[in-house]
Amino acid sequence: MKTTLTKRMTFCSGHRLFNPKFSDEKNREIFGDCANPNGHGHNYVLEVTVSGEIDHETGMIINLKELKRIIETEIISKVDHKNLNIDVDFMQGIIPTTENFAQKIWEILDQSLGNGLLDKVVIRESENNKIEVSR
Amino acid sequence: MKTTLTKRMTFCSGHRLFNPKFSDEKNREIFGDCANPNGHGHNYVLEVTVSGEIDHETGMIINLKELKRIIETEIISKVDHKNLNIDVDFMQGIIPTTENFAQKIWEILDQSLGNGLLDKVVIRESENNKIEVSR
Amino acid sequence: MKTTLTKRMTFCSGHRLFNPKFSDEKNREIFGDCANPNGHGHNYVLEVTVSGEIDHETGMIINLKELKRIIETEIISKVDHKNLNIDVDFMQGIIPTTENFAQKIWEILDQSLGNGLLDKVVIRESENNKIEVSR
Amino acid sequence: MKTTLTKRMTFCSGHRLFNPKFSDEKNREIFGDCANPNGHGHNYVLEVTVSGEIDHETGMIINLKELKRIIETEIISKVDHKNLNIDVDFMQGIIPTTENFAQKIWEILDQSLGNGLLDKVVIRESENNKIEVSR
Amino acid sequence: MKTTLTKRMTFCSGHRLFNPKFSDEKNREIFGDCANPNGHGHNYVLEVTVSGEIDHETGMIINLKELKRIIETEIISKVDHKNLNIDVDFMQGIIPTTENFAQKIWEILDQSLGNGLLDKVVIRESENNKIEVSR
Amino acid sequence: MKTTLTKRMTFCSGHRLFNPKFSDEKNREIFGDCANPNGHGHNYVLEVTVSGEIDHETGMIINLKELKRIIETEIISKVDHKNLNIDVDFMQGIIPTTENFAQKIWEILDQSLGNGLLDKVVIRESENNKIEVSR
Repeated sequence: MKTTLTKRMTFCSGHRLFNPKFSDEKNREIFGDCANPNGHGHNYVLEVTVSGEIDHETGMIINLKELKRIIETEIISKVDHKNLNIDVDFMQGIIPTTENFAQKIWEILDQSLGNGLLDKVVIRESENNKIEVSR
Repeated sequence: MKTTLTKRMTFCSGHRLFNPKFSDEKNREIFGDCANPNGHGHNYVLEVTVSGEIDHETGMIINLKELKRIIETEIISKVDHKNLNIDVDFMQGIIPTTENFAQKIWEILDQSLGNGLLDKVVIRESENNKIEVSR
Repeated sequence: MKTTLTKRMTFCSGHRLFNPKFSDEKNREIFGDCANPNGHGHNYVLEVTVSGEIDHETGMIINLKELKRIIETEIISKVDHKNLNIDVDFMQGIIPTTENFAQKIWEILDQSLGNGLLDKVVIRESENNKIEVSR
Repeated sequence: MKTTLTKRMTFCSGHRLFNPKFSDEKNREIFGDCANPNGHGHNYVLEVTVSGEIDHETGMIINLKELKRIIETEIISKVDHKNLNIDVDFMQGIIPTTENFAQKIWEILDQSLGNGLLDKVVIRESENNKIEVSR
Repeated sequence: MKTTLTKRMTFCSGHRLFNPKFSDEKNREIFGDCANPNGHGHNYVLEVTVSGEIDHETGMIINLKELKRIIETEIISKVDHKNLNIDVDFMQGIIPTTENFAQKIWEILDQSLGNGLLDKVVIRESENNKIEVSR
Repeated sequence: MKTTLTKRMTFCSGHRLFNPKFSDEKNREIFGDCANPNGHGHNYVLEVTVSGEIDHETGMIINLKELKRIIETEIISKVDHKNLNIDVDFMQGIIPTTENFAQKIWEILDQSLGNGLLDKVVIRESENNKIEVSR
């Protein structure tokens, strides 16, 4: 039996999808409207899942307050109301597709949480698109 | 008895809230994180409500295909994947708060639809904030 | 101060939109895919709003159990898992657009509830389309 | 043209519906499972709508941060993770139906906001039941 | 680390659940209201998940525009506003339960996408029922 | 290919999180507002997933009516509008965190369904927190 706990948090960011090595035409062809030069943005939904034993004294896998604090410190405070192409250190030099963004968040949270606690990271970029990263 | 029809559509845009007449400090004080210089963005939900008599031959207040076409032509095509501060003609010189944005959309759709058809415009900027403009 | 109570219920039905007085071409032009001969269907969401004084002894405008019973008896039992064009008495001879459907539901519930209790009927045909009938 | 801004916030509370003047049988008959002696609870959704002119310098009806602060101070801090029958001063001696609860929240926010700003209070007790109080 | 991308799309269809080898009584006993002779229908939500490596030049597992095109061509265009019992080639001779429907969609998309890209197909028939097919 | 069916049901309960072996201070430190002495409550969403072969005659993994009956009998009838700390037999002596609650529901349903049918139990305590138990 495997038990997991998932915390959902939200934030909003701006971004623009383009590869500086591509021509404007190629960027437009591949990234479509997402390549518009002045950027756009999204309300992102982030779901972080941890897996582990339930502590007998607390009935918890992890204290939700602690999990929330880590996600806020490590991710939300760095990306909320920010431009992913310009303002976010861990996204420098990376095309801010949801795929790349989710993998970076996985790497950061996996290190912050430690002990193999992290089980899954989901980012919903819109009500119709989501990325999941899992072990 | 009043009957209305509401069409929901979505788009995403970037924006930055600031008043060029304010100091950076005052912009930060009033607009908070929304004043971040490099912008951010949202998935907006737009709900357009029209009111009127039901046509006896079609059973419709307005053909949904026609309503959708008008909203796409007049609003969505101009704001989707765009930066509201820079790319959108009808927002030039206007602080892109949801209040101002919703009023502009009301003005445009009221004129496009004509005949007093427009009953309400709702914009949801996030799952927690919305603006309604109505007669 | 006006206080209202809204009960949300769901059901699913089949229907086909067409006017027997129109040619096939005109039906297709006006109703689009909704005119497909073999029908299709929807998960409908029905929201019924009543308005009135709060009873001092119960703290209620109307007992939710009673409101639910009326909606189930008068509407849900007659339309759920039914074909609106064929199986539903109160829709005979009427094009089952959401506009017409909502008005019929209003008429039935207004009579069943009596006393001017009914304030609004909303039908959501999809996550993107809804009809509201109100006084 | 009327413009409104709505802030959505959530909280959870326990409650029990019963009238101490009624017998147990009558309480059970009227309030059903909601009369269970040891109480139960809900995730409530609170939507507060204000109406007013848009300030030309800020593009706002009211600063969302200020509106959020008022709702948190006046309502959320007093009801979140509390028992409405026992812990909440403004609900003492009142049956905590959603109708009564919403009216009390209206009275408090109408006074706190002042200037006739308050336009509507909505409480959703579940995904299927909601109460609206408006002018 | 496994990374997946999920595209959500919606459509509506009519259907009737019955096995022609069963008596009317047995069909009614097993399929309940879903066996009503004139059919009913649903708003279906389809979620298609693909899994794979992230391309370094685009930051994508698959271009969402391409994935959307395939789902529209192979599935949506064939089932939207159609009757699953009558109009849909790939459902001929099959009871259109969500289980059977989801498996057929899996088979078609697995072949169209190729390369083992397909990871999961989810169909939500209502807000309370869903089927998942995965490797 | 693995096929699963998920049934979503809702209920509401009261609870209080505390360990009687802890001091009030420690309970407050660990459980925060959830330790408030008079309790609070939630609208819980329960999702039960079963996995298995599709029966050729019915097109079903399990009859949804039967699955719903089992969940109602074994779980919903015992916890809906109840206090988890006081009224629910299978939670006696257990801190009613969502982790513990979900594991108990898993154990009960796994036994009731038998044959290894049960694949996953999800409980959503709020729109931001959920627990999953799976094999």
